[in-house]
Amino acid sequence: MATAGDPDIITDFIAPPNRTVDGNFFTNTGFRVIVGGGPPPTAFKVLKATLAEFPALNGQSVSYAVLQFPSGTTNPPHTHPRSAELLFLVDGTLEVGFVDTKNNLFTQTLQAGDLFVFPKGLAHFQFNADSQNPALAISAFGSANAGTVSIPSTLFTTGIDDHVLAISFKTDVATIQKLKAGLAAKP
Amino acid sequence: MATAGDPDIITDFIAPPNRTVDGNFFTNTGFRVIVGGGPPPTAFKVLKATLAEFPALNGQSVSYAVLQFPSGTTNPPHTHPRSAELLFLVDGTLEVGFVDTKNNLFTQTLQAGDLFVFPKGLAHFQFNADSQNPALAISAFGSANAGTVSIPSTLFTTGIDDHVLAISFKTDVATIQKLKAGLAAKP
Amino acid sequence: MATAGDPDIITDFIAPPNRTVDGNFFTNTGFRVIVGGGPPPTAFKVLKATLAEFPALNGQSVSYAVLQFPSGTTNPPHTHPRSAELLFLVDGTLEVGFVDTKNNLFTQTLQAGDLFVFPKGLAHFQFNADSQNPALAISAFGSANAGTVSIPSTLFTTGIDDHVLAISFKTDVATIQKLKAGLAAKP
Amino acid sequence: MATAGDPDIITDFIAPPNRTVDGNFFTNTGFRVIVGGGPPPTAFKVLKATLAEFPALNGQSVSYAVLQFPSGTTNPPHTHPRSAELLFLVDGTLEVGFVDTKNNLFTQTLQAGDLFVFPKGLAHFQFNADSQNPALAISAFGSANAGTVSIPSTLFTTGIDDHVLAISFKTDVATIQKLKAGLAAKP
Amino acid sequence: MATAGDPDIITDFIAPPNRTVDGNFFTNTGFRVIVGGGPPPTAFKVLKATLAEFPALNGQSVSYAVLQFPSGTTNPPHTHPRSAELLFLVDGTLEVGFVDTKNNLFTQTLQAGDLFVFPKGLAHFQFNADSQNPALAISAFGSANAGTVSIPSTLFTTGIDDHVLAISFKTDVATIQKLKAGLAAKP
Amino acid sequence: MATAGDPDIITDFIAPPNRTVDGNFFTNTGFRVIVGGGPPPTAFKVLKATLAEFPALNGQSVSYAVLQFPSGTTNPPHTHPRSAELLFLVDGTLEVGFVDTKNNLFTQTLQAGDLFVFPKGLAHFQFNADSQNPALAISAFGSANAGTVSIPSTLFTTGIDDHVLAISFKTDVATIQKLKAGLAAKP
Repeated sequence: MATAGDPDIITDFIAPPNRTVDGNFFTNTGFRVIVGGGPPPTAFKVLKATLAEFPALNGQSVSYAVLQFPSGTTNPPHTHPRSAELLFLVDGTLEVGFVDTKNNLFTQTLQAGDLFVFPKGLAHFQFNADSQNPALAISAFGSANAGTVSIPSTLFTTGIDDHVLAISFKTDVATIQKLKAGLAAKP
Repeated sequence: MATAGDPDIITDFIAPPNRTVDGNFFTNTGFRVIVGGGPPPTAFKVLKATLAEFPALNGQSVSYAVLQFPSGTTNPPHTHPRSAELLFLVDGTLEVGFVDTKNNLFTQTLQAGDLFVFPKGLAHFQFNADSQNPALAISAFGSANAGTVSIPSTLFTTGIDDHVLAISFKTDVATIQKLKAGLAAKP
Repeated sequence: MATAGDPDIITDFIAPPNRTVDGNFFTNTGFRVIVGGGPPPTAFKVLKATLAEFPALNGQSVSYAVLQFPSGTTNPPHTHPRSAELLFLVDGTLEVGFVDTKNNLFTQTLQAGDLFVFPKGLAHFQFNADSQNPALAISAFGSANAGTVSIPSTLFTTGIDDHVLAISFKTDVATIQKLKAGLAAKP
Repeated sequence: MATAGDPDIITDFIAPPNRTVDGNFFTNTGFRVIVGGGPPPTAFKVLKATLAEFPALNGQSVSYAVLQFPSGTTNPPHTHPRSAELLFLVDGTLEVGFVDTKNNLFTQTLQAGDLFVFPKGLAHFQFNADSQNPALAISAFGSANAGTVSIPSTLFTTGIDDHVLAISFKTDVATIQKLKAGLAAKP
Repeated sequence: MATAGDPDIITDFIAPPNRTVDGNFFTNTGFRVIVGGGPPPTAFKVLKATLAEFPALNGQSVSYAVLQFPSGTTNPPHTHPRSAELLFLVDGTLEVGFVDTKNNLFTQTLQAGDLFVFPKGLAHFQFNADSQNPALAISAFGSANAGTVSIPSTLFTTGIDDHVLAISFKTDVATIQKLKAGLAAKP
Repeated sequence: MATAGDPDIITDFIAPPNRTVDGNFFTNTGFRVIVGGGPPPTAFKVLKATLAEFPALNGQSVSYAVLQFPSGTTNPPHTHPRSAELLFLVDGTLEVGFVDTKNNLFTQTLQAGDLFVFPKGLAHFQFNADSQNPALAISAFGSANAGTVSIPSTLFTTGIDDHVLAISFKTDVATIQKLKAGLAAKP
């Protein structure tokens, strides 16, 4: 139960047409805001440096995300179809967990400096249970475009039939509609 | 956003130690029940021929599942971490759908003889909406062990903290507990 | 001695330019004729759902073929350069066999409901020995384009020099020419 | 229609247990006979340096074969399931050919110093048409164990049923039996 | 000119024999020292979290290194045989560069928060030119065991013949011996 | 510590647009000069048959180089980012060596007819120590574009800052400048 890396390239790197290839092409400044000391976010926030934001990653099979957790916030259960995630907790504490394909739940309470690996393709989540302090993590992926299937929004905000969801979750349509309403409301 | 095939092998095939390798080794009879005309199941049922049931598939990057849908039943939303799924609807009709990583829902009503491909790693479901007739499908996978992450059971039967789930689904703990209770109850 | 899967893709799916991508794009109806109850073929017939017939399979590493064997017909020895074949015998009986790279022949008599795996890249064949009944099989491949090298037509209908073939098969030119004539004659 | 390389390794090299790993481990002397000036063979002969003969090739995805063609001899039609073949004609002349999966035959007359690539997984052959001189070629493969499916011996020396072969080649059983007899007789 | 990812696994994860698999197995605490505020190193220092230090990374195709640069120190030219490197400069400034296979040098001066990608397999280096302040970077790799070929130590501390090196670098043996002596002396 | 093969193709072969595909397309005559008996080179010389010189190799994961060593010449230390190298010494003698990632040096003295494998991604060199005779080798690669990072020219002819190199090699700037001057001077 695993997913593989990106396809290989047979050149040193891949540049978009007409793009000047110099040191700037291999540089991305999107994370400066993280070290810049600006005001922290008020909701869980992900900042990515993947193929979309950083074209030089094309064919290089690696990318980053920075995860910012205000006190009491969660990164909802999700999967990455194309990569494991190696999380480095830079600041704060974090409750993390994943479920393997035999329905075993693995959890851990991380402190600053800890690494945790979420195996490829499995559903996982993170939660900052600290009532006072934010948490900051950086996650590495072995793909330039790991992708994310966020389970709550995938299931309850895309228009899947209420009845199908009710049967799937062995509940009633009213509960499904309540979940849809809650997730549809933007904070 | 895709997953790759199984690792290659550098022999013709792989046999377990001390296993006699003759024509029987390459044969699996687990699907005879499907063509045998026995009584159909009363709930949605999956019959698999993967690495676990058919060891000769080791290194051959292909497997099957037979899906039996009594009237009104569903195969709940799930992902396969290691393969796309190519479904062939042999009998009946079937509502199918998947959500891509940009949260677009794609659905289709299939009739007998139709094929539908669920792309690699994406969340998808099937539903037999016919109030009278069962549906029967066979699905091929480009992996000997595609794996399944069934979303309802992964999230609500493995012990993930109620509070984390409530925040994730933007609902209250009572709703999470109701979902857990419903999914815990075996039919 | 094995072959690998297709190259990965780094998007959810691949659509041809200017193609509307909706549920229809992921659907193929080419096999409806199989379940439609039309007259069976009078010679061995293959119906494919591969990259060529079903563009949505691009990058998904899976495809199907339906094999129809009237009584007494054969699918001549061939190889698939890019995939193993997992055959599911839906109806009838079938003699199957393959030869590994050490020149061991593996054969089996299949009954309806049986699965048989032909390992990657090896020469194999199927034969419906039943003098009364047709056989119907569906085969899955772990590639969107497994490819077929049909040995009789590859060797004897493409213009390879008679003398080279005679030496290769340790026979005389007359025998080669007789084989060529037989295979050239369309039924 | 192609086959992939060997699986990767995650060490510099792989040594068998208890094997001393020094410069000798990475050296193979099996081709010394080629440059040694001994008497040439009297029949077509292949000398290999693959995983079996040279264990240090494990995981390195490359191997060699030396092909010696006395005047008028052929390397019968065959496929390599795991690699293309890049032939370098060192001495003599050689008729070469392969057939693609659309049944197009590609042939060439090579002179000493020429390279010819036989694409992955396709049926191909070589023939020394020179009535006087031998030919010598070295072939490189992008796999440590490319494998060989030699078509004449695979089909006609392994015990495949005469009737199946006769139907497959659209000929009579007598012709099949004649071919089997010819190939069974060792020179 | 690129290298591929690790081989895939066909299980959720791989655990060593007799290892208890719980949340701790997926956790590594080796980087706590980085966030712990201890005294900075006095020479360039690398702290790794790869397959060797963190066995749960087996088959997950991702790893980390933390790079600490006191003022005026360098990470000497090296290659990673199995992965690109995506460097995130957490603190300080850094001069970075790599050379492609056409002998083009690409350099950049990074400030805190910048990302720089060193393409797969190419020779590269980092240098903290700041005369006052240290620099701290974290690098992600798309392999659990990217490997490092450090050029100065590989060439000048392993016993390669002086004369071979002198010819290779178009210099005299005395210069080679001087380089060897300098690199042999531990600081 | 290894690198993988080229990405796969899903066609028999890949031809450039508007290129006639016949037997000539699969033939390369660039090595005729080797067997033609012309005057040997006076310096170390490499003749390649890779993707650049032989477009039919695209997607076939194999290539060649012919290495000609006049007496006393060397192929300087280098790495191939995408393939191991399997060297076949056709004529003469050759000192060869490589260094693994644990800084172990492996060396061997080869005689004509010997094969030596340089594992993937590792730094290696060859030297013809014979004061009288030239040496001739052919090397196979498991990639159509193995690539070469020649260490002396990569480090000392591309403009890397003298100070960075001096620190890296634990020497003084004058020595670095002397090395640069020597390598800049064309013979």
